[in-house]
Amino acid sequence: MFESRITQRVRYAETDRMGVVYYANYLVWFEIGRNEYFRGRDLPYADVEARGYFLPVSEVRCRILQPARFDDEVTVRTTLAEIKSRSLKLAYRIERAGELLAQGETVHVCVNGDQKVTRIPEWMKIKLTL
Amino acid sequence: MFESRITQRVRYAETDRMGVVYYANYLVWFEIGRNEYFRGRDLPYADVEARGYFLPVSEVRCRILQPARFDDEVTVRTTLAEIKSRSLKLAYRIERAGELLAQGETVHVCVNGDQKVTRIPEWMKIKLTL
Amino acid sequence: MFESRITQRVRYAETDRMGVVYYANYLVWFEIGRNEYFRGRDLPYADVEARGYFLPVSEVRCRILQPARFDDEVTVRTTLAEIKSRSLKLAYRIERAGELLAQGETVHVCVNGDQKVTRIPEWMKIKLTL
Amino acid sequence: MFESRITQRVRYAETDRMGVVYYANYLVWFEIGRNEYFRGRDLPYADVEARGYFLPVSEVRCRILQPARFDDEVTVRTTLAEIKSRSLKLAYRIERAGELLAQGETVHVCVNGDQKVTRIPEWMKIKLTL
Repeated sequence: MFESRITQRVRYAETDRMGVVYYANYLVWFEIGRNEYFRGRDLPYADVEARGYFLPVSEVRCRILQPARFDDEVTVRTTLAEIKSRSLKLAYRIERAGELLAQGETVHVCVNGDQKVTRIPEWMKIKLTL
Repeated sequence: MFESRITQRVRYAETDRMGVVYYANYLVWFEIGRNEYFRGRDLPYADVEARGYFLPVSEVRCRILQPARFDDEVTVRTTLAEIKSRSLKLAYRIERAGELLAQGETVHVCVNGDQKVTRIPEWMKIKLTL
Repeated sequence: MFESRITQRVRYAETDRMGVVYYANYLVWFEIGRNEYFRGRDLPYADVEARGYFLPVSEVRCRILQPARFDDEVTVRTTLAEIKSRSLKLAYRIERAGELLAQGETVHVCVNGDQKVTRIPEWMKIKLTL
Repeated sequence: MFESRITQRVRYAETDRMGVVYYANYLVWFEIGRNEYFRGRDLPYADVEARGYFLPVSEVRCRILQPARFDDEVTVRTTLAEIKSRSLKLAYRIERAGELLAQGETVHVCVNGDQKVTRIPEWMKIKLTL
């Protein structure tokens, strides 16, 4: 099963006054992982939108096990957990030097330019699952 | 059961190029609901930290049903869903003119100034559940 | 001269590990002040865009005199500092209990739906300066 | 004169409903440039804070010439524009494929752990200007 990996440093902007990363930022990192997953499948997400499809998040779950801190190098590992006719689920693991910091999932529905839920087109399915 | 409510307008900063609110911002709104819940229980969260306790998020779940848009007035309704010896769970509903846009939960562990998990002190329990 | 005022509480999300508000968030508060200014001139900014005009920021300046902190109630006072044929400048003061925390300005160019710089239409000028 | 460079992709989270990067995010990218500058001077900013010094922003200026868009690769070029006894100024250029998108400056005051303005210590000056 294909898994993408991308590493980045924690920004000061992403921390809060507890001295650790503010929890909503894990979802931003999921997005970074997602973008990398799509790119790794040879389908940059910008191309999906250029073709008139959008994948808004309908559900997200995140567990935080260990806090990330400023300047940490964190890696986002992303896999496709499920793909249905109109939605898909991605799974994420956020690690620092091999230690699992957080994990989670996002569910996305496929919508067209009129913001109507629609079937995931074949070309997208093929790219994402090949 | 006590429920807090707080209303705010969607910021331009909170939207993304899909024209709707970026999904991680629902978690920021959960935080606003949480702060209001604590304030409504006569225990502003800043006071919790001033007393040496912190409530970092260990888990979050969010379902987005309808997108919020720039300048919408959205209301966050917050309740205490569960309180255990070392953790608590809050539940949120985000509404616009009575329509449910999103709902979710956060689980928080109680940690002390040394960032060790600790029992929720009695005064906090009493305030939050009275 | 018309001045709008709007007050809000500092979000935990807006703080950083220095324990104070992260500097980029002052610009987000400028946006809140700006929205309130437009609303106070009976021209909500969403209506400007609905009519096919946009006012992206071309320049911003901000001086931070005192740090804002979590849960502070901060007030954004906004005035129109200048209006030219194709651009306008807004000025902001951010205060806490009357104490000036930050001040700044944003310059906006008027662009149309094709993202071409264009003249500020009369109806906008009238609303903003009446 | 030393100049650091760091390249990153624009996040979806950084865009707004105008379809371009929200203006406050340029300041976040300045921070990324700043961190890279310090790292390139062999003085990671986290080490500055570990030694009990902080460099909060007292002033920022940013001009946006061309909008950055989702998934663009943008490069932040950072130089030290000025160093005084208690403050320093950094200058930034944000580019996409050699095209200047934005430029700006931040002024930082040196404060100690008690949040008092203090002289920039010699070791910091030496590292930053060598």
